[in-house]
Amino acid sequence: MTMKRRQFIRTAGIGAAGAAIAAPAIAQSAPEVRWRLTSSFPKSLDTIYGASETFAKTVAELTDNRFQIQTFAGGEIVPPLQALDAVQNGTVEACQTAMYYYWGKDPTFAFATAVPFGMNSRMEDAWMYHGGGIDLFNEFLKEYNVYALPGGNTGCQMGGWFRKEIKTVADLNGLKMRIAGFAGAVMQKLGVVPQVIAGGDIYPALEKGTIDSVEWVGPYDDEKLGLNKVAQFYYYPGWWEGGAMLHFGFGIDKFNQLPKSYQAAVRTASLMANKDMQAKYDAVNPAALKRLVQAGTQLRAFSPEIMNASLKAANEVYAEVSAKNAKFKKMHDAYMAFRNDQYLWWQVAEFNYDNFMIRSR
Amino acid sequence: MTMKRRQFIRTAGIGAAGAAIAAPAIAQSAPEVRWRLTSSFPKSLDTIYGASETFAKTVAELTDNRFQIQTFAGGEIVPPLQALDAVQNGTVEACQTAMYYYWGKDPTFAFATAVPFGMNSRMEDAWMYHGGGIDLFNEFLKEYNVYALPGGNTGCQMGGWFRKEIKTVADLNGLKMRIAGFAGAVMQKLGVVPQVIAGGDIYPALEKGTIDSVEWVGPYDDEKLGLNKVAQFYYYPGWWEGGAMLHFGFGIDKFNQLPKSYQAAVRTASLMANKDMQAKYDAVNPAALKRLVQAGTQLRAFSPEIMNASLKAANEVYAEVSAKNAKFKKMHDAYMAFRNDQYLWWQVAEFNYDNFMIRSR
Repeated sequence: MTMKRRQFIRTAGIGAAGAAIAAPAIAQSAPEVRWRLTSSFPKSLDTIYGASETFAKTVAELTDNRFQIQTFAGGEIVPPLQALDAVQNGTVEACQTAMYYYWGKDPTFAFATAVPFGMNSRMEDAWMYHGGGIDLFNEFLKEYNVYALPGGNTGCQMGGWFRKEIKTVADLNGLKMRIAGFAGAVMQKLGVVPQVIAGGDIYPALEKGTIDSVEWVGPYDDEKLGLNKVAQFYYYPGWWEGGAMLHFGFGIDKFNQLPKSYQAAVRTASLMANKDMQAKYDAVNPAALKRLVQAGTQLRAFSPEIMNASLKAANEVYAEVSAKNAKFKKMHDAYMAFRNDQYLWWQVAEFNYDNFMIRSR
Repeated sequence: MTMKRRQFIRTAGIGAAGAAIAAPAIAQSAPEVRWRLTSSFPKSLDTIYGASETFAKTVAELTDNRFQIQTFAGGEIVPPLQALDAVQNGTVEACQTAMYYYWGKDPTFAFATAVPFGMNSRMEDAWMYHGGGIDLFNEFLKEYNVYALPGGNTGCQMGGWFRKEIKTVADLNGLKMRIAGFAGAVMQKLGVVPQVIAGGDIYPALEKGTIDSVEWVGPYDDEKLGLNKVAQFYYYPGWWEGGAMLHFGFGIDKFNQLPKSYQAAVRTASLMANKDMQAKYDAVNPAALKRLVQAGTQLRAFSPEIMNASLKAANEVYAEVSAKNAKFKKMHDAYMAFRNDQYLWWQVAEFNYDNFMIRSR
């Protein structure tokens, strides 16, 4: 098709004066573009990975199929946790990832996804789209040659599966827990021994007792891993992921080279995927929760003692990292100021409305 | 531009065989289209009206400015509450409106925007995008020749401004309250005398004591009307608008005649406006709330007695209307089943997370 259109334009240019003016405009504004997107997620996580497909499908629809993005599951091109690197070094044009996976490069990455006692899903959107979050994060990302946009959210996650009841901070001591990233550093302060285990290895590790606990996502995804079959107690809330935001990342040069209408397609399709993923999680989680409870899962709230100790530990980690990392401090301070204002307002109408609805169900 | 492009294609068709195949595809897929959109809102409500501008701007960007939608404030073409009618009868191609304005035609309209003790903003999205809501509502809308898509949300609104404290249901008796639509029918059961007053007339009516109370939106919009200067008590939550969703409506024929990529632009830009409006409200409300409280506004929660009586009254109205309106009953039953499942899940992770964050701020 590309060949035919080029030939068409060249031929037309010879034909008529009017055509000579119109032709370059069409050629520049609607070129055929092919991108590859590498995801950090497997296809089995259909809600998360599905958002990359929604994104690609939307970009194609918006451009009359001229801009095609082929999506690849984690591991097909590069390992899941190297999705950002693959964009940075130009292996692919785009990625779908959770930015907090890269907290080892710099813990500042965590603020783009979720941090302990951070904002909920809707607040994160307010910060990103109308609170300066997108600009602030991309200023930080520049040195990685990546431009990133919000592309999904899980909502508040569950606190995970435990083989034994956890009532006090003492019960956490020595507990081997599969927990990812920055949250693990906070958990360590509480005596937990964080374990990094890929999705496919979680079930056997928990079954054999290699680990005592695992946090994954929420009812819909956790049920698919079968975690309820090897652990009875399902705790809430996941205070380290009040809303876990996913991102699409693009090579800065690749993005800048796109025609303006294709850039708009990328921006708008990312936002669509962002909203769509949250809507899908909200739609599918209730039925999964009911099935889990009917099959014997015991729901438990983290005790006030554990919640308060976790908050104290998180604030200690924030202070420690802020003291030695100026980028982290800048992002932290902006994020927390916005969070505090958000909850000041949230506690009035939203929270009291939800509270009444829950009590009067 | 249109003329030139047509001429170009015709000329090109003569030039080469390849061009003869490619030409019709371009002509059909990227025509120049001009639409007019009439809003139900004034430009002064910059967050709501601004979403129609965001929508139009996004459609233009996505189509290289070939599809232009000119937006008009309420009253510029047709009166604010006739926006839907103007699309139905073909006066304009599109509108931005709150569907519950048309509850007088059929109370079923209310479910698309907000109903007393309905879903919150995020749940409404889950219902619309992944719970069958969009299809169900458009099935109902067909006889109005309108196809509608979600295009914004205010989040949970405030319960409004009162010149005197309202502690019991008895305090509501005879109270003249500016309250719109279906919620007014529920308020009547509590003894309230609902008043329909346009935005610009609210302030003087409340100042003169023609009305005793007014519900409008939330801190950001209410502050702009200056309502805090003529009433001291600001109640929450607005139990009749747990999340007020706005819509864009399009003439069904007009929408169907669009090239597929333009239809995708309309769908995606509507969704963008939906998310963007909520994010903006969330971003601007906290500062407005702080200013109001600093200037002397007294925040008050509706008493449990009033909340419980309101829920009872709402359920009575639902039963009464369902008994005589099959369309209403169908929509009501689908909506409430989804709501109940949503709150079953919401009460676990989301609510407990927010609860802890609010208490430990």
